[in-house]
Amino acid sequence: MHSTVNAPRSLIPIGAAALLPDTAEHVRRLEEVLLGRIGQWGYREIIPPTFEYLDVLSAGLAPPVLEKCFKFADWTTGRILVLRPDVTAQIARIVAMGMGGAELPLRFCYRSTVFRYEPEHVGRDREIFQIGVELIGVDGPHFDAELLLLLVELMKAAGLPDFTVSLGHVGFYQRLLVQSGLSPEKRREAEYAAAHKDLPRLEQVLAQERVSRRLARTLLETLERCGRDDVLEWGRRIAGRDPALREPLDRLASVYRFLIKAGCGNHVVLDLGEFRGFDYYDGVVFDVFTDTVGRELGGGGRYNHLIGRFGRDLPSTGFAVDIDRLFAAMRPGDGSQKTARLPVVVLSAPRQYQAAWKLAQRLRASGWTVVQDTVLSAEALQIRHLRKQRRYISASAIVMLGADGLSKTEAFVALPGQSFRASKVQQGDLPSVLHTSVLSEGADGRAPGSRPS
Amino acid sequence: MHSTVNAPRSLIPIGAAALLPDTAEHVRRLEEVLLGRIGQWGYREIIPPTFEYLDVLSAGLAPPVLEKCFKFADWTTGRILVLRPDVTAQIARIVAMGMGGAELPLRFCYRSTVFRYEPEHVGRDREIFQIGVELIGVDGPHFDAELLLLLVELMKAAGLPDFTVSLGHVGFYQRLLVQSGLSPEKRREAEYAAAHKDLPRLEQVLAQERVSRRLARTLLETLERCGRDDVLEWGRRIAGRDPALREPLDRLASVYRFLIKAGCGNHVVLDLGEFRGFDYYDGVVFDVFTDTVGRELGGGGRYNHLIGRFGRDLPSTGFAVDIDRLFAAMRPGDGSQKTARLPVVVLSAPRQYQAAWKLAQRLRASGWTVVQDTVLSAEALQIRHLRKQRRYISASAIVMLGADGLSKTEAFVALPGQSFRASKVQQGDLPSVLHTSVLSEGADGRAPGSRPS
Repeated sequence: MHSTVNAPRSLIPIGAAALLPDTAEHVRRLEEVLLGRIGQWGYREIIPPTFEYLDVLSAGLAPPVLEKCFKFADWTTGRILVLRPDVTAQIARIVAMGMGGAELPLRFCYRSTVFRYEPEHVGRDREIFQIGVELIGVDGPHFDAELLLLLVELMKAAGLPDFTVSLGHVGFYQRLLVQSGLSPEKRREAEYAAAHKDLPRLEQVLAQERVSRRLARTLLETLERCGRDDVLEWGRRIAGRDPALREPLDRLASVYRFLIKAGCGNHVVLDLGEFRGFDYYDGVVFDVFTDTVGRELGGGGRYNHLIGRFGRDLPSTGFAVDIDRLFAAMRPGDGSQKTARLPVVVLSAPRQYQAAWKLAQRLRASGWTVVQDTVLSAEALQIRHLRKQRRYISASAIVMLGADGLSKTEAFVALPGQSFRASKVQQGDLPSVLHTSVLSEGADGRAPGSRPS
Repeated sequence: MHSTVNAPRSLIPIGAAALLPDTAEHVRRLEEVLLGRIGQWGYREIIPPTFEYLDVLSAGLAPPVLEKCFKFADWTTGRILVLRPDVTAQIARIVAMGMGGAELPLRFCYRSTVFRYEPEHVGRDREIFQIGVELIGVDGPHFDAELLLLLVELMKAAGLPDFTVSLGHVGFYQRLLVQSGLSPEKRREAEYAAAHKDLPRLEQVLAQERVSRRLARTLLETLERCGRDDVLEWGRRIAGRDPALREPLDRLASVYRFLIKAGCGNHVVLDLGEFRGFDYYDGVVFDVFTDTVGRELGGGGRYNHLIGRFGRDLPSTGFAVDIDRLFAAMRPGDGSQKTARLPVVVLSAPRQYQAAWKLAQRLRASGWTVVQDTVLSAEALQIRHLRKQRRYISASAIVMLGADGLSKTEAFVALPGQSFRASKVQQGDLPSVLHTSVLSEGADGRAPGSRPS
């Protein structure tokens, strides 16, 4: 305790830092690209509330997730509120209440942050930026495939050079665990170890519970198998004639065939030990990975009984992508990382304020970013003053009205990118002058007036 | 207590409902329009964290705001976290820590929700959607004017037919209160009553504290004065030669003149009793109103000493707009309320999945929203089946591959808007066929394939 007291007090909430303009801009542009694609697949955005009643939402949350939630008492009702740890459960709640509309299937998407206590404190791991989709009210391998194809599309839209979707079906492994004779509680322990590919822990559970050596070996081996048709063949040998093992394999094979037909088979590996951290999945599940980021960039799967826990049984599937991790996996210069435009500064003394205002508005109307700046004395309107101030150095052009040597209809244009080279122009010609002079600087392929990186 | 226990338990957190697709779409489009304009004025977005340490942020929050915050303990540090009640204080914290950059002025904007306990429970009043801007590191009437002009621009961009900006300067009234000889505590009480235009309460405080009748009358009358040059004249008569009263009036007059020069004077009324709820304002302050919404749509002002409370003194000004209230003030059909496009459904049996996938992707690439749908038997591919399902009725067109009577290169196109009238076309001609047939339905001025309202 004493060391904590003496440690410097952090001013920034751990795991929840602000996004400053350059990063915020990239994140917003990435969001736009991804949500644009998602929208083109017919998914419509829902904006869920930031907190929910714990007694309501907990129906859709697994105990390990519940334990990591931020909770607090609501003064006015005496009930416990929880910062959303997961949007899927919220959307399930909304749909079960009949608020999502009656026409099935429902296609929803969201961009939200979710909140979880994480012990590691690496980056923004307590407030996590997510984009996700849910396809609600229908079951079938082609609907599973739709989600997987959309996930692949999003990874491509983000400009990811390489990525792998790991695809499985929780039903196969769960059936093997049932065969092993474990108690429901021990099964859950084994599932948890399997989800985290924690083989030593799994081995321990199986040994303690005296699971047969043959079955234990199968359970361990399943976690290490991943491939393509060979995995399906291996699974079928294990399954024999047990329909409870064959069914998940057949579903998985069917989804996989759709992916191959759509030309996305090369991004997929099959993994019969694929699990997700949330206990509501009960069908096909998947994660997406790259070599460069240690943890999955996103994932999801089928949860045919989650919405039922809120009172209305509807088969469903969905996934979420972690924006921070996706961002980390993208190479600089990838699709969505254009640079921002530097502003044009329109500068005048108060006497020319009106003319400067009109000019600024005219330039904004033709798409320029404009900062209108006013110096309080006309004497300060000199090009040589500009060089000294960083706000002028980082402009794409400075337009000056009312300086010595200018008539009422004239302006100076100075270009910081060309050592403040200035020229006298007619104000009416400014849009085309700026277009030519600022664009010509961008001839190296940068956007007009782009921010030097 | 007993009545509460028997009342039906709300499933939705009070004051924090989800935004469903139609509303979410309008809100996002409004955000886009407003942030687009703000960006063109040189402001860059910051995304602040959702929670902060109370002991840090409280430096920038007035006691009445602090009392309304959602607070909870952080398990890992034992410190108290607070859901942000106000983004301005967060940005002040970030800038004071030197994280916002060194180049002044800093122009930042944000779109965030803020959280406050509100007793009324009207609408989404506990999770409030805001868009705001901050102009940091500079002082001067033209910078005050910049913010006001931007606010006017945003109201126009939202398509508001009528709105009024109420403009004042807290310095004038605060000086009158100092002259009245009230204790600092009683001054705060009087300020609070003035901010809420609570004249009876103010009268009571002034009477209890035996403030002179003349000054009490002035203090009460100030709150009821609003107008234009007449208010400035009246103020000057009250001020006489007291520089502490003349200074705020001169600043206000100077800002007002800039607004007139920019042609926005008609949207402004001056109000020497204008106060804002936050105690950090110390200069020009303003609110924006319409006749149709009972409370202000937004507001802000100058806070030259807020950032100093976090350790770095920088003059600043800013404002925020309440998106829900702005939305309520907008008339249907205003600028940002276009309707969404209905999807095209591409329908096939599994055998044509590959061709259907390629077609769906081609249509998406040319800007269509496309849902790919698969029926599991070719027999179901009949136009008459479509009429029975709502998901087809609400499509803009249905494209069917692999049905009876179609060659491999052909498709049926059925238009729900024309009683499912179907025609056989070459798949290669589909982009142009859809363009013609769906666009012609939109000849009444609706967007192509727009959602019927």
